[in-house]
Amino acid sequence: MSQLAIGIDMGGTSLKLGVCEGAEVIFKDEPIMTKDFQGVDATVQEIARRVESLRRRYPAISALGIGVPGFTDVNTGLVHGLTNVPGWNGVYLAKILREATGLPSVAENDANCMGLAELHHGAGRGFKHFIAITLGTGVGGAVFLNGKLFRGANSAAGEIGQMSIDYQGVEKTGEYSNPGCLEKYTGNQHIAQRAAQLYTAAALPKTPEKCEPKSLAQAAKEGDQIALQVWDEFTSQLSTGLANCCWLLNPEAVIVGGGIAAAGELVFEPLRRKLYAQLGQAFRENLMVLPAHFGNEAGIIGAAALALETARGVQG
Amino acid sequence: MSQLAIGIDMGGTSLKLGVCEGAEVIFKDEPIMTKDFQGVDATVQEIARRVESLRRRYPAISALGIGVPGFTDVNTGLVHGLTNVPGWNGVYLAKILREATGLPSVAENDANCMGLAELHHGAGRGFKHFIAITLGTGVGGAVFLNGKLFRGANSAAGEIGQMSIDYQGVEKTGEYSNPGCLEKYTGNQHIAQRAAQLYTAAALPKTPEKCEPKSLAQAAKEGDQIALQVWDEFTSQLSTGLANCCWLLNPEAVIVGGGIAAAGELVFEPLRRKLYAQLGQAFRENLMVLPAHFGNEAGIIGAAALALETARGVQG
Repeated sequence: MSQLAIGIDMGGTSLKLGVCEGAEVIFKDEPIMTKDFQGVDATVQEIARRVESLRRRYPAISALGIGVPGFTDVNTGLVHGLTNVPGWNGVYLAKILREATGLPSVAENDANCMGLAELHHGAGRGFKHFIAITLGTGVGGAVFLNGKLFRGANSAAGEIGQMSIDYQGVEKTGEYSNPGCLEKYTGNQHIAQRAAQLYTAAALPKTPEKCEPKSLAQAAKEGDQIALQVWDEFTSQLSTGLANCCWLLNPEAVIVGGGIAAAGELVFEPLRRKLYAQLGQAFRENLMVLPAHFGNEAGIIGAAALALETARGVQG
Repeated sequence: MSQLAIGIDMGGTSLKLGVCEGAEVIFKDEPIMTKDFQGVDATVQEIARRVESLRRRYPAISALGIGVPGFTDVNTGLVHGLTNVPGWNGVYLAKILREATGLPSVAENDANCMGLAELHHGAGRGFKHFIAITLGTGVGGAVFLNGKLFRGANSAAGEIGQMSIDYQGVEKTGEYSNPGCLEKYTGNQHIAQRAAQLYTAAALPKTPEKCEPKSLAQAAKEGDQIALQVWDEFTSQLSTGLANCCWLLNPEAVIVGGGIAAAGELVFEPLRRKLYAQLGQAFRENLMVLPAHFGNEAGIIGAAALALETARGVQG
């Protein structure tokens, strides 16, 4: 029997917990709502309570992995700062979880976890070098080189959403101001804003629902000109961001996940076409552009896979 | 005594040959002018003639490396196509040179060779992960990860000059059309064009000489407003291209070489300032932005270093 691990996918509003056996989430626990457990201590206590109960049910659980929405040094387990969760700065999360649960524990960036799910059990299997991108409210990414997650000098590599596609473009405000970053063009919020803008300019009725990516995908399939334009712009912006990764790293595959990947060929056909047209022969030759295998559960599965891999490494 | 190797730096107009001992070119041969030896056979014969004569003079020569302006598969020595040298498509250059000279031979992309010079003997020593960029007529690059040149799936990685900084920007025509590629903004030709454009718009006199990067650097130091604007735009464009590499790979250093690096702090001060402002903390923390150690000889030194490294590897 293969080993079991608990994977936790921490987001801005909730922590999703699952017990994983390889590519499968064999048990999905109720999510922990962040509003109910404010601060690190209260959250960790609740995680420990859940873990204890899950281990009684699944004694084969041997490790714990958590994916967090921010920079994490996987060697020390230090979480550098979570954009959407106050009070989680400079937390040695892996150590705290290990002490609280008694399980070998590891903390990693959430987009890296999603990529790890694809590497170990999904669309990334068999590739030596690939890029994974996750499109949603934010745009995250992960870089896999020589069959392994590449983390860089400070465990921060893979921030495809922060790469610029326009040096004079939309400014990101806050800690840093990188103009034209991909996330500001291909994040869900921007897609909705752009649709609203175009519907308004055309004096056509619009509702927030109509401007959601899901509705826009349906509308485009039905021939709605504005929805088609939104996706046309989106795929040009996304293909430029991905082309930049390809020119720099010459990967074998690009794996696209997150809610938007569900739009299927509406996104993937033009994305492939535009990306290939932007790349030289040595870059587009054999380059695969693939939808992610996993959806919502990618973060849980990847965190669990990393936990098992790390625990094995630690034990020699 | 350390081993000697011949390094050859092949450009559009000439092949520069040198005998290298580590970081030093101990003998620089007369360049082979490409116009005098058309086609692969004639060029290789002339290289073999030179090599024979160099080996008589330096019997310790034990390997040969050549850097070429195009994609090269370092494992097979296959040159995929040289942009500026007709007739050099699909040439197994390493094999041909090995047979013609009797020396263990290796062929590599020229920008990779320049980066290798920095890795082994220059500004890249001691870094685990760094990016090298070479600015000139073209803009080339090389990626070093875990202390080694990273080549990607088809030995084509590191094309920083082809990465886009504007998805709606200047179109590159030809085999592929990647809009807004960095080379079209920060290559010498563009800098000159931009200066000419600004001088004309301001009804100021201009000459081709005045619009050369070297003259523009001098003019900027003397307070010329248009020259200052050209460099301000240049550093914004370059910092966006480099920021993209940093967001993706989180390197420890960025090494900038080529003619423009000679402009010194005129370029490096704003470049550092803008790059740090565009990056999150985990990316700018400890990030070094350094001028390349080597100038014109980088290609020769890097090709020779690679030749020795490969010959040692082959011999076990």
